[in-house]
Amino acid sequence: MAIENLQDALLEEMRDVLSAEKQITKALKQMAKKASHEQLKEAFEEHLKQTEGQIERLEKAFEALDRKPRSKHCDAMEGLISEGKEIMEEDAEPEVRDAMMIAAAQKVEHYEIATYGTLCAWAESLGLDKVAKLLQETLAEEKETDEKLNSLAAEINKQAQPA
Amino acid sequence: MAIENLQDALLEEMRDVLSAEKQITKALKQMAKKASHEQLKEAFEEHLKQTEGQIERLEKAFEALDRKPRSKHCDAMEGLISEGKEIMEEDAEPEVRDAMMIAAAQKVEHYEIATYGTLCAWAESLGLDKVAKLLQETLAEEKETDEKLNSLAAEINKQAQPA
Repeated sequence: MAIENLQDALLEEMRDVLSAEKQITKALKQMAKKASHEQLKEAFEEHLKQTEGQIERLEKAFEALDRKPRSKHCDAMEGLISEGKEIMEEDAEPEVRDAMMIAAAQKVEHYEIATYGTLCAWAESLGLDKVAKLLQETLAEEKETDEKLNSLAAEINKQAQPA
Repeated sequence: MAIENLQDALLEEMRDVLSAEKQITKALKQMAKKASHEQLKEAFEEHLKQTEGQIERLEKAFEALDRKPRSKHCDAMEGLISEGKEIMEEDAEPEVRDAMMIAAAQKVEHYEIATYGTLCAWAESLGLDKVAKLLQETLAEEKETDEKLNSLAAEINKQAQPA
């Protein structure tokens, strides 16, 4: 199928991020289990719920465009999650592994910040106000999660210092 | 090799981003060739030179830690670049492809913003001032590149509207 204009590109990118979000929900369950710091565990669990809401919002955006919510496998998220898995299997001290898991989670957040940033710009440029509003809500949540992980990292990094 | 503390994690993450930067230099050459908007082509070429400088800075950071600059294959960047390649091969109108290539490039930038953000926080927390300074310079460049792509996107998105 040829991509003739920005609306085609928007749909293509929405399919990519729908796949990304679904991959993230699976990964977050494992990360919450593996985290040792209580607040980090809670942050991953909370973000899991948020991600489920973000998937629903994406489905509404497809609906607003009169399209079925299809996903298209996101290779980038597969790579990001494969790095996260490697960290979880690493022979590391718990507080160091927590610091590394935050790093992996922030890479995932930044993938989403970049993607939803693009989607918002495209939807606005196309005058698709309803779609833009839905995507902006998710973009704001992703930025908030990234900030929350920054605060948690500041505390956990102190515990992961060399003896 | 066990990861016992944050300094081990820092080295591990530096090896990851060294691999990422090397993969990016190859991809940027192809993206500059494929871009149709003249300013976008120039932006990719300029960022290619910048990336070469960022690799040198990373090598200096390894040196400051008395380690050889080894890279460790970055799966996430492989996934990000594979998405970029798919876009370049897509049957799309030139201005739409440009908009999609900017989206792919901003995902790469955000991977680096997240990674250098973590590296800076870790280096500062470890009191490694020289390393932190080198990594901060690169972080600032990545954020600047992302902003530049935002401005270019605003113009290119207008040209990629449906008829």
